[in-house]
Amino acid sequence: MDFRSDNVTGAHPKVLEALVAANRDAVSSYGEDPISERVTRKLQAIFETDCAVFPVATGTAANVLALSSMTPPWGAIFCHEVSHIAVDECGAPEFFTGGAKLVTLGGKGGKIAAAEIEARGGAGKGVVHHVQPAAVSITQATEFGAVYRQEEIAAVGAACKRHGLRYHMDGARFANALVTLNRSPADLTWRAGVEALSFGATKNGALGVEAVILFDKTLTPEFELRRKRGGHLFSKMRYLSAQLEAYLEGDLWLANARHANAMAKRLAEGLARLPGSQLEYEVETNEIFVRLPEPAVAGLEREGFRFYRWDGAQLLRLVAAWNTPAAAVDAFLAAAKRLLAANAA
Amino acid sequence: MDFRSDNVTGAHPKVLEALVAANRDAVSSYGEDPISERVTRKLQAIFETDCAVFPVATGTAANVLALSSMTPPWGAIFCHEVSHIAVDECGAPEFFTGGAKLVTLGGKGGKIAAAEIEARGGAGKGVVHHVQPAAVSITQATEFGAVYRQEEIAAVGAACKRHGLRYHMDGARFANALVTLNRSPADLTWRAGVEALSFGATKNGALGVEAVILFDKTLTPEFELRRKRGGHLFSKMRYLSAQLEAYLEGDLWLANARHANAMAKRLAEGLARLPGSQLEYEVETNEIFVRLPEPAVAGLEREGFRFYRWDGAQLLRLVAAWNTPAAAVDAFLAAAKRLLAANAA
Amino acid sequence: MDFRSDNVTGAHPKVLEALVAANRDAVSSYGEDPISERVTRKLQAIFETDCAVFPVATGTAANVLALSSMTPPWGAIFCHEVSHIAVDECGAPEFFTGGAKLVTLGGKGGKIAAAEIEARGGAGKGVVHHVQPAAVSITQATEFGAVYRQEEIAAVGAACKRHGLRYHMDGARFANALVTLNRSPADLTWRAGVEALSFGATKNGALGVEAVILFDKTLTPEFELRRKRGGHLFSKMRYLSAQLEAYLEGDLWLANARHANAMAKRLAEGLARLPGSQLEYEVETNEIFVRLPEPAVAGLEREGFRFYRWDGAQLLRLVAAWNTPAAAVDAFLAAAKRLLAANAA
Amino acid sequence: MDFRSDNVTGAHPKVLEALVAANRDAVSSYGEDPISERVTRKLQAIFETDCAVFPVATGTAANVLALSSMTPPWGAIFCHEVSHIAVDECGAPEFFTGGAKLVTLGGKGGKIAAAEIEARGGAGKGVVHHVQPAAVSITQATEFGAVYRQEEIAAVGAACKRHGLRYHMDGARFANALVTLNRSPADLTWRAGVEALSFGATKNGALGVEAVILFDKTLTPEFELRRKRGGHLFSKMRYLSAQLEAYLEGDLWLANARHANAMAKRLAEGLARLPGSQLEYEVETNEIFVRLPEPAVAGLEREGFRFYRWDGAQLLRLVAAWNTPAAAVDAFLAAAKRLLAANAA
Repeated sequence: MDFRSDNVTGAHPKVLEALVAANRDAVSSYGEDPISERVTRKLQAIFETDCAVFPVATGTAANVLALSSMTPPWGAIFCHEVSHIAVDECGAPEFFTGGAKLVTLGGKGGKIAAAEIEARGGAGKGVVHHVQPAAVSITQATEFGAVYRQEEIAAVGAACKRHGLRYHMDGARFANALVTLNRSPADLTWRAGVEALSFGATKNGALGVEAVILFDKTLTPEFELRRKRGGHLFSKMRYLSAQLEAYLEGDLWLANARHANAMAKRLAEGLARLPGSQLEYEVETNEIFVRLPEPAVAGLEREGFRFYRWDGAQLLRLVAAWNTPAAAVDAFLAAAKRLLAANAA
Repeated sequence: MDFRSDNVTGAHPKVLEALVAANRDAVSSYGEDPISERVTRKLQAIFETDCAVFPVATGTAANVLALSSMTPPWGAIFCHEVSHIAVDECGAPEFFTGGAKLVTLGGKGGKIAAAEIEARGGAGKGVVHHVQPAAVSITQATEFGAVYRQEEIAAVGAACKRHGLRYHMDGARFANALVTLNRSPADLTWRAGVEALSFGATKNGALGVEAVILFDKTLTPEFELRRKRGGHLFSKMRYLSAQLEAYLEGDLWLANARHANAMAKRLAEGLARLPGSQLEYEVETNEIFVRLPEPAVAGLEREGFRFYRWDGAQLLRLVAAWNTPAAAVDAFLAAAKRLLAANAA
Repeated sequence: MDFRSDNVTGAHPKVLEALVAANRDAVSSYGEDPISERVTRKLQAIFETDCAVFPVATGTAANVLALSSMTPPWGAIFCHEVSHIAVDECGAPEFFTGGAKLVTLGGKGGKIAAAEIEARGGAGKGVVHHVQPAAVSITQATEFGAVYRQEEIAAVGAACKRHGLRYHMDGARFANALVTLNRSPADLTWRAGVEALSFGATKNGALGVEAVILFDKTLTPEFELRRKRGGHLFSKMRYLSAQLEAYLEGDLWLANARHANAMAKRLAEGLARLPGSQLEYEVETNEIFVRLPEPAVAGLEREGFRFYRWDGAQLLRLVAAWNTPAAAVDAFLAAAKRLLAANAA
Repeated sequence: MDFRSDNVTGAHPKVLEALVAANRDAVSSYGEDPISERVTRKLQAIFETDCAVFPVATGTAANVLALSSMTPPWGAIFCHEVSHIAVDECGAPEFFTGGAKLVTLGGKGGKIAAAEIEARGGAGKGVVHHVQPAAVSITQATEFGAVYRQEEIAAVGAACKRHGLRYHMDGARFANALVTLNRSPADLTWRAGVEALSFGATKNGALGVEAVILFDKTLTPEFELRRKRGGHLFSKMRYLSAQLEAYLEGDLWLANARHANAMAKRLAEGLARLPGSQLEYEVETNEIFVRLPEPAVAGLEREGFRFYRWDGAQLLRLVAAWNTPAAAVDAFLAAAKRLLAANAA
């Protein structure tokens, strides 16, 4: 009954089985192994294009290795003010880029609007006093669980193209967005202009692996050097790749995301029915932001439910994961109902 | 029959079992889990001191996060000219330190002499035109498989102390050195002045984990920020820690290293008996550098034995690992014997 | 009749005379000359404290060398969203700090409020996912010509102290602010908590020199290394110092600033009397922001007056300098009056 | 009688006159002034090519802005082990490049041999574990006063071309080399493959200015951003350019260098005749390295002659400058003769 994050969960048994299976024989290190090769081919098939694939172990690594391959030290990266790269990575993008500037934008639900990029994407270009517009990074799904529609992604892509900006997508929860949208991975990425994707797996059933997918393969040589130089090239790469292979096999990643989203929906619908509870955002993926009165929040905590008080007060973030049991959701709802009723009395 | 490196091997079954065992329940992320806590206590016991312990996933990460916490951007890091940090990390130390300078020194077998540090450790200090002596990094065991004796480590430590230099040990193969020396881990590190150790596990039976051990805990706050900022803080930390726990449990790490060293010794002794073969260095751990005539080298390759031609010619590096079978060693020796005899004929 | 900036002007004749006078004899380089020594003593007298003084040649150098000596790579620097460091230095602060983050704040007239620092100065402290609050930089006078009062400076200083933040003042136009406020340099800086000041001279009558003044001398060793490493340590330092000596001698700096401010006042008062002209900010120093109808703006341009269209449209920035003739001001006013009248007709 | 360096001298009177003459009118800042334009045209004429010209104020700035525009963060820069960039810039190249590695080479008189570049210029190319060969920097004249012949420069250039390396020349004393060689500036730079030159003036009669000359103009956009971001773009650029204009006018730079070299020759020839004195290197420009017995060295110091003990002992560096009087040389020789005779007695 821990709703704090999708990173408090374990890994899917099939992912662990894949690790055990990978643990055979001596194989070439640093990604020259057959599993890594298969994962690349599998992701190329899923994304219907000849992309480059680089497994790394953390989401921060995926984001900053991609972004730094797309942004010079004097570049500006446009992103949302609540985005992970802006808020939760301790300045890793600045570090890896050699001091680029994150220009943060507002926007409902954690989404930035194409119009903002249209308006600012050329600011200061060619004027040495100003950082130079270089890249855009969007988060799919966003930190508030919202999902960019294909046309929204493409509109940002068009603005990037017009201004000569690189285009990155932080897809730490890409699977959750995908199953909501019911569109092809290709439609939601490179066909809409995205050039690099941080393809998340850790939160959705892996132990610790993400794939950086470069749709623009000209970025590859620099990316590979940055990965090594960042300490993110694994000698025993097979164990990252094996996680990804199991994650993709039989569409496990989609099944996991569907389950997480369904549990979030169940929770959200239950909360919507409770007087005194107020959902902060529409629930499109696996994150719920809900406001409850303090006695109910404190009561839930007392009863052992775990979640974040997002604002330090009564706005709760509840995250459903690939393995959240329906029973846990129902238990939370029952407790909330009881506590809210007691509070209202 | 792959002697290329100890990183082409798989992981010890007990390490994998530990991963499976760790895959239970929701636990706090980013190292706030019970396994991580236990690993810290275990390493504190092994090293007989209240050290700080940080699991990371690659040796490069371990080295550069430690070094950058000990060296300002204008610092000089003294190290051997063949050291991993100088040669094999694509400038990662320069990147993480913000541009420090590796001052490379010679020295037999990949070992640097305390006298060198004594002589150069104060050069340019306080003169703004020059980089400032900041740290020393030694490798135990070295890239050539040599081992620093306790008194050698301590002599470097004394030179560091005299010149106000930080002291780091790259212990990617610390276990192999330890079992050779038969001294306590404490004697070979902090009691000899070492302030930070990259404690390797990947090459010796893990999937991908090293521990940075800070004997000087004042380095901790900066280290923790650098780890996050470098993309090296794992959300599901339990899976790094579980590897380490199994690695340490029942002295598995020592048993693995003993086996690797024993296989290397068996191989070296066999080679020493073969006319036409010439060992380049004394074999103290699990690496062998041997010179053979080209027909023999080519013959071994043809027969499917794998190894590196270290100089691109006839100097071979052969690495024995925790799981190298005696039969593989014997097969190599038999083939070498036969090929050398044919060549001599 | 060029009102574009106070950096389009030449230098005061006395400053040039000082250069000629300094051009005698061989003297020690890198600041070990008697003129540099005298400048330090003079500024210590002016600021009534034992500060450290470092002449550098550009305002950007002054700001970023100071800030980078006060901010770790993972630090946050709070500053105004229109500040020179945030907007006009091409990311130099990010470069010199190794990737720190400028957290930009709003505030009337380019001034940030102490309350903002109080509210945000501790955010994320000790949490590795977030950049760490490290420093505050205010601009005196601001980019809009506004002046911080002593109590405002001190209030920010108190907030810095409470949160353990470093405190920097960009004083590219410090002289202009000083003569407006009629307080002692000490009161407006270190007595109010400021630890480092970029003390401008270039815009106010020098050829190209600013002094970084460190009120906290513990910053000195790191600053000196950063200055050299940044390429900002001059071998023939005497020529920077000679400019400063003449600039300070006989309070030339104050006379220059008084003149510039007086000319700005004359211009502002004239404009205030013209129907159709609208001053955007109160004029406290030597910068005027005024809105005129397009025909008047175009007319002024046609007649050879030079200024910036601040917003690319009809908001003009007019800057008065140490050598702006009253006649030029009057000519501008006469033309504006005529053009506005024609436009109104 | 100060032979410590050519940077302890003042500036040529004509350079100061040019500053005074430049001090007229308001002109556009940041290099958009007519003097800067004229200097570019003048240097294009001198170098017989359409090069880009950027005045900066220090030699370190010139070197590192040029090198960082030619070298990625993971690049290797080949240079001599005594070169200014390797030894005397406090790691500025590492800082500006974002952590590139200076690979230092030996070579007589401070010169590196083309054969070294041929041999090492491709090492590790494309292998992510190693820094990538990126650039070569030679110093003309070298730190020991030696001069690269045209064919030597061209041979290094050919090696650069073969390996795809960028080619930089640190010409802090370019004028001194030029007058020794009696070849055209074009022959000694771009016609021999040099792509960027740090063209020194400070040591040879200016107050503080060097020109970065980019023969490959594709480097320009990045260079301009790096210059600003490094704090090296002067608002009142006219005062840098005016120095250069006077320096070039009427071949003042060549006359100055000829004088310095002639004085060095006079000194060297005098020393060569003195028993007990031993010249360390052939004297090709304006630097002399001579070994004298300690009593003579101490005696010279006692009598007020100033110079560096290069090795901290009895190897003296004596530098002649554009304004060294013959009388000073003769006085030194007379004193040395007397002291050596006394010592021999």
